[in-house]
Amino acid sequence: MAETALDLTRSEKIARFDTRKSEEERRERLMRLLQRVRARSTGLVAALSAEDKMIQSMPEASPVKWHLAHTTWLLEHLVLVGQCQGYTAFDDSYGYLFDGHQRRGGHHLSADQRGRLSRPSLDEVTRYRDHVNAAVVRLIRQVPGARLDAVERAVTIAVQHELRHQEHMLSDAKHALWSLPQQPALRDAPGGPSGNAMPQRWITQAGGLVEIGHEGPGFAFDDEGPRHRAWQDPYKFAGRLVTCGEYRDFVNDGGYEKPSLWLAEGWALAEREGWRAPLYWQKRHGEWAVFTLAGLRPLADAEPVCHVSFYEAAAFARWAGKRLPTGTEWELFAQDRPVEGNLLQNDRLHPVPASCAEEGPWQMFGDCWEWTVSSYAPYPRFKASHEGFAEWNGRFLSGLMVLRGGSCLTPAELMRPTFRQALAPQMRHCMTGIRLAQDA
Amino acid sequence: MAETALDLTRSEKIARFDTRKSEEERRERLMRLLQRVRARSTGLVAALSAEDKMIQSMPEASPVKWHLAHTTWLLEHLVLVGQCQGYTAFDDSYGYLFDGHQRRGGHHLSADQRGRLSRPSLDEVTRYRDHVNAAVVRLIRQVPGARLDAVERAVTIAVQHELRHQEHMLSDAKHALWSLPQQPALRDAPGGPSGNAMPQRWITQAGGLVEIGHEGPGFAFDDEGPRHRAWQDPYKFAGRLVTCGEYRDFVNDGGYEKPSLWLAEGWALAEREGWRAPLYWQKRHGEWAVFTLAGLRPLADAEPVCHVSFYEAAAFARWAGKRLPTGTEWELFAQDRPVEGNLLQNDRLHPVPASCAEEGPWQMFGDCWEWTVSSYAPYPRFKASHEGFAEWNGRFLSGLMVLRGGSCLTPAELMRPTFRQALAPQMRHCMTGIRLAQDA
Amino acid sequence: MAETALDLTRSEKIARFDTRKSEEERRERLMRLLQRVRARSTGLVAALSAEDKMIQSMPEASPVKWHLAHTTWLLEHLVLVGQCQGYTAFDDSYGYLFDGHQRRGGHHLSADQRGRLSRPSLDEVTRYRDHVNAAVVRLIRQVPGARLDAVERAVTIAVQHELRHQEHMLSDAKHALWSLPQQPALRDAPGGPSGNAMPQRWITQAGGLVEIGHEGPGFAFDDEGPRHRAWQDPYKFAGRLVTCGEYRDFVNDGGYEKPSLWLAEGWALAEREGWRAPLYWQKRHGEWAVFTLAGLRPLADAEPVCHVSFYEAAAFARWAGKRLPTGTEWELFAQDRPVEGNLLQNDRLHPVPASCAEEGPWQMFGDCWEWTVSSYAPYPRFKASHEGFAEWNGRFLSGLMVLRGGSCLTPAELMRPTFRQALAPQMRHCMTGIRLAQDA
Amino acid sequence: MAETALDLTRSEKIARFDTRKSEEERRERLMRLLQRVRARSTGLVAALSAEDKMIQSMPEASPVKWHLAHTTWLLEHLVLVGQCQGYTAFDDSYGYLFDGHQRRGGHHLSADQRGRLSRPSLDEVTRYRDHVNAAVVRLIRQVPGARLDAVERAVTIAVQHELRHQEHMLSDAKHALWSLPQQPALRDAPGGPSGNAMPQRWITQAGGLVEIGHEGPGFAFDDEGPRHRAWQDPYKFAGRLVTCGEYRDFVNDGGYEKPSLWLAEGWALAEREGWRAPLYWQKRHGEWAVFTLAGLRPLADAEPVCHVSFYEAAAFARWAGKRLPTGTEWELFAQDRPVEGNLLQNDRLHPVPASCAEEGPWQMFGDCWEWTVSSYAPYPRFKASHEGFAEWNGRFLSGLMVLRGGSCLTPAELMRPTFRQALAPQMRHCMTGIRLAQDA
Repeated sequence: MAETALDLTRSEKIARFDTRKSEEERRERLMRLLQRVRARSTGLVAALSAEDKMIQSMPEASPVKWHLAHTTWLLEHLVLVGQCQGYTAFDDSYGYLFDGHQRRGGHHLSADQRGRLSRPSLDEVTRYRDHVNAAVVRLIRQVPGARLDAVERAVTIAVQHELRHQEHMLSDAKHALWSLPQQPALRDAPGGPSGNAMPQRWITQAGGLVEIGHEGPGFAFDDEGPRHRAWQDPYKFAGRLVTCGEYRDFVNDGGYEKPSLWLAEGWALAEREGWRAPLYWQKRHGEWAVFTLAGLRPLADAEPVCHVSFYEAAAFARWAGKRLPTGTEWELFAQDRPVEGNLLQNDRLHPVPASCAEEGPWQMFGDCWEWTVSSYAPYPRFKASHEGFAEWNGRFLSGLMVLRGGSCLTPAELMRPTFRQALAPQMRHCMTGIRLAQDA
Repeated sequence: MAETALDLTRSEKIARFDTRKSEEERRERLMRLLQRVRARSTGLVAALSAEDKMIQSMPEASPVKWHLAHTTWLLEHLVLVGQCQGYTAFDDSYGYLFDGHQRRGGHHLSADQRGRLSRPSLDEVTRYRDHVNAAVVRLIRQVPGARLDAVERAVTIAVQHELRHQEHMLSDAKHALWSLPQQPALRDAPGGPSGNAMPQRWITQAGGLVEIGHEGPGFAFDDEGPRHRAWQDPYKFAGRLVTCGEYRDFVNDGGYEKPSLWLAEGWALAEREGWRAPLYWQKRHGEWAVFTLAGLRPLADAEPVCHVSFYEAAAFARWAGKRLPTGTEWELFAQDRPVEGNLLQNDRLHPVPASCAEEGPWQMFGDCWEWTVSSYAPYPRFKASHEGFAEWNGRFLSGLMVLRGGSCLTPAELMRPTFRQALAPQMRHCMTGIRLAQDA
Repeated sequence: MAETALDLTRSEKIARFDTRKSEEERRERLMRLLQRVRARSTGLVAALSAEDKMIQSMPEASPVKWHLAHTTWLLEHLVLVGQCQGYTAFDDSYGYLFDGHQRRGGHHLSADQRGRLSRPSLDEVTRYRDHVNAAVVRLIRQVPGARLDAVERAVTIAVQHELRHQEHMLSDAKHALWSLPQQPALRDAPGGPSGNAMPQRWITQAGGLVEIGHEGPGFAFDDEGPRHRAWQDPYKFAGRLVTCGEYRDFVNDGGYEKPSLWLAEGWALAEREGWRAPLYWQKRHGEWAVFTLAGLRPLADAEPVCHVSFYEAAAFARWAGKRLPTGTEWELFAQDRPVEGNLLQNDRLHPVPASCAEEGPWQMFGDCWEWTVSSYAPYPRFKASHEGFAEWNGRFLSGLMVLRGGSCLTPAELMRPTFRQALAPQMRHCMTGIRLAQDA
Repeated sequence: MAETALDLTRSEKIARFDTRKSEEERRERLMRLLQRVRARSTGLVAALSAEDKMIQSMPEASPVKWHLAHTTWLLEHLVLVGQCQGYTAFDDSYGYLFDGHQRRGGHHLSADQRGRLSRPSLDEVTRYRDHVNAAVVRLIRQVPGARLDAVERAVTIAVQHELRHQEHMLSDAKHALWSLPQQPALRDAPGGPSGNAMPQRWITQAGGLVEIGHEGPGFAFDDEGPRHRAWQDPYKFAGRLVTCGEYRDFVNDGGYEKPSLWLAEGWALAEREGWRAPLYWQKRHGEWAVFTLAGLRPLADAEPVCHVSFYEAAAFARWAGKRLPTGTEWELFAQDRPVEGNLLQNDRLHPVPASCAEEGPWQMFGDCWEWTVSSYAPYPRFKASHEGFAEWNGRFLSGLMVLRGGSCLTPAELMRPTFRQALAPQMRHCMTGIRLAQDA
């Protein structure tokens, strides 16, 4: 899976949408991006059988096969149906099956029924992917120069969308494998390091009148902007993520037994669900083990804790006498840093301990998504950019919390300092971890 | 699928457990029975892919793969583990996965989670079947004569159990295929005949002090006996099953709109679920069509109506000014008749119109299971015969209704005049139809 | 509450519908019956405040005020609206509020919303009762002789209906009081006797071709007939009900821990609900106490066990190596006995130990309803007699079990050897106990 | 109910906690405040019977009797138990019944069971109120000067808490009355004016670096502070609330039919619940009527629309091409204005049309709570001040939205420019309306 040779170079990223490039270079770059990302989607899950790819282990997760088809449908819909006159859809019924949006009156397959789709088979979905890939490549090659901008924009959106689904697909596959009685691994991977974590460190930010949010020529989803001013009080920011060792101390100190540490609805949920540790932690013969995409492994103290809900993150922070950061506080530290870290291309598929080669804060990108206390809401003066997404407005669900920084399953091409992930506070099967903050 | 050559001959049935036969003949017959039934299970669903065999389209149905593994597990458990000293289970985890009984504390996989089992794969389940088949054949060949009786008994129970599951498997597969957006057929089949049904005819039974229930040397499940006396008033029995044409008249006459025709809880259910016709009836361009294992077909008036709940059967009977029969009333007509009719071996997989070659009542065996007003309860002086079935007592759930006579999906080897099927009154995905009765 | 002076004399019962009596005597008797029963309904619950009478402690129970109004509505509907030309309803909205039948489209108040009815107030319901009482008395006095039969029939049905509700009202009030944090008593009552129960005794019935069911001139509900023949094998019948002491032995022997004793769905329910003893048993300082209408009292060993579901009764019987009787087996012992026992008029409101003054079986009437294994279904040749009850057909719900013999809350005027109570097998808040039987 | 004579004077409000006042004046003022507020609570619902006061018409609402007892329990707990050594609780069981906080293990009565509490009776709750009132008055009179501050603080919190419950109690009573089949009025009130609303007007705010949040000596709940800086872009603010007439245009224009106007989860909810108009709007003979505390009245076009969820408010705003304001945007307009408007003391119990006597924006205080797009979360540097409230942390539930400005049911003593109400976005039974905003 290592893609070093093929990986997105920094110059390539900067160059995106740079219309000064020659048309040929732009066509070439777009094709290479498309092919690399599309091939990676299938490569990531090549070890899973057709039956494995059909599992839906909970209503909130989708089968791997569905992800493979859904991303293809969106690519076909945005690029081929949208930009290629006379294109005939590969299969008319796929909109019903693979457009993810729930609509009134049942015009789409209910999301919790995706695990029943034995047909189309994986073979047919593979043919569908190949067919659409070839047609998009043809379009990129042949579209008149005057319409290249529009095609480039549509392909970019579809690719960015597929990059998001690469992470969802791996998270869902992890849950599916864990749900199987055999708890098999997706593949082998080197074990985590033994030894202690580096000590926590606190970095002060002076605050003042600041600016955050996306602006400029590079691609970003509309919810990353507009760039806007905000007032920020001075604060301290944790140098690294909370580790498994620290979280175990919280568990051992009765963290799951003390309602005073918890938000009321988090406490009610934890009780109802019987939570006693992060998802995927299992006690075996008195020792904690953790399920990873490489199978069950002993808990490594120095690794960042992962698969905690917002409620657990907030309870831990209260127990530690600290708090979670806001989205603004996170972005102020991230916005001038290179997007580097333990992302998907690092090919570990699991968080790794912080190392202090560079100046902190560390682990800003990759490893684990970092819960913030910011609700997911539009920025001031936000304008939705529909771009063919039906009911995009539906995105802003009330009660979602913003997460930042990506994880070890996030493709590097997707990560940006302004990127906002949004999850319901009870979610635990994504790669969600904890960074602390405190008032200065 | 036609098995005429291999089919169970009447003499063979009579001979079962006939210990006067030579040992060699008994071993040979048992092996033939085992192999025929086991091969049929896989043959019936050979047209379905590994993905198709994984679908669980509702909690009350199981995936085809699960049926194939569950029947194998019971065979292994009863015959190999039970009768073959030193036998090592093919896989220790299969009891957890494939023993169907729910037990306290989650010692078995919850029945509604069976659709998530991508592993073991279909290939592995096939290997499991082959392994157990071979071991059982070996045991039948080699078991000392003194223990042949016990082995014969165990194999017979396991085979009878698998025969039951052949029907469940087809009913569940039918529901799964129907649930797919494409509604594909299992296979082709000749269409139903056009034309009218033969007229209904009423046959009088004089009643008196009668006897029903199993007795004697042939195999029967314990709930078919003991044979016992009962008083029966004279009654009239419908010569044939209710047809689709007759049922459509009920629909058109507002049968689903009149609470006075319905049992209260049936009415509540029909409202809640929006029932307006039998399961699998669909209106297309103003005409009724019906989903069959051969795909969607126009409704044939003369065919027996199928896939109705007990509540619909009872409402229809009230609408028709008649009633449903009791189990005793049914058995009195069945007990002296040969077990012949449109059963699984007839290879139609769908009910067919009655034809009057023989003296009525017709369609006693095969076509559709016939709802009775008898609750499923033990007969007087019933003694449970556990035979290695855990918690067999659980069978007698309150509120199940007895059905009689088998269907076009019931293997002939399973059918007996005393056989009692038991279903919850709301069930509609089995092959359930209607025979009427009235007081004399 | 003791009504000895006013109580229904045996001669009066025999005389019912005896048209040879003079018209005046019939009018007089009917008025006396009406007034006695109506006055008793309010007297039974006089100790409860208007607020108490509004409690609905579970969806299956109704507030006392609702019972008082519902019985009045039925009396008004059957007798005044039905028999008295030109009668104007007391309040047009009361059909919506107080007719108990659920109908499509919400034409009646949903049964689980009855606890929200602050209006009409208790005062208004009392006025309603008085108004209807007076009008019915006037009608009885003044109706022309030619129509007296019809009025007598209508009043009798309404009174019998109210008698049923006297028991429901007390059972529901008991549950309501128990649900209150204070667990108050309805009123004082003498404590149960100490000491041991008389030994169990087994009485053999020879069986043969028998007859059960109502026939003849006295009043009975339609489901008590028609009288019909049945074959009965010989059996043994327990002389007295199972006692609290015996049931405690079952509890102490792990009766609630052994799935093999239970029907599968009963076991699942007991687990889900955490049942460990009958409803109203509570452990206080290591000793069992039981909530009664006279408040919490120490468990008395010799008293019949009460407030057990069908599942618990069946599990107890299996544990004891016995079984529950059928309805026929019960009626054969009851049909020649006088209707005497610890019924409502005994004014104990709680079961009492058997005493052997007469020849057994004892406790046939009163004390506790006795679960049978008979499903509630129409007898052969049953014809519904609607008599103005809407959707009376709805009575025969599938899955109800028949109980026999009445309880300490059953009015004597209601009790007959043929009377069939029907309850869902999970019900525990009615006065339900256990009588054992076995094959001879 | 008009309290002009007794009403809180502006000077009195300013004087609160002003320790320069003489001790006697402070004692006197505190007693007057306590007595006025406590008397008002009972006066507001004096028209309801004991039965009415027991209704719980939905799990999210509480019976009036419960509010009367709960506020008393908190007063007793904070002031008497907390400040008065040797005080014996009126009834030990009242903590279980009337402390509103849900705790693990069922240490408090489940909130949805409050409607079953027939005991303590209303009479007893009234005695409880009188008892506690007298004891608190005694304490205020007699507490040594050194401890007067603490008592004053405790009484003030309890009074502010009861003021909040005065509004909850009226909102819940409104829902209870509406739920009754008779839909009775709480009391008479003058009808709304006919005629048109004044035209909408837009007022521009220049923005910049601003400050919001409570600071200073007057009482405020802890979540109203700390005062903090924020950056605000320029914006326009609607001069008055959205009217019923405007909202009806939205309804008539298919506002409830167009998913593109709605947040996805709002749309799903509206479909599931069948919403077609605000709660309490009912169509009668083709005309809209609206249920008020004075009963059902024709819809008055000029009145502010009320009883809309956040989802409906947001959908309306999108339909109107505007948006909802943030909490900051609201507070900037409110912070220099006198707290005047159609509040509870105005005794209308219903929103009234805006009138332009003063310079806009109008209707800032009173009439309807105004939904904002701000999630309910702690302000920067927030410190919880427990003050004896158990699990106060539980307040910050995720997914609550902030509302501002109070309503016609909000007591004037409670209202402050910094006050933040928090409701789940689906709530409709509180007095919730709509003010629009837009970017400048």
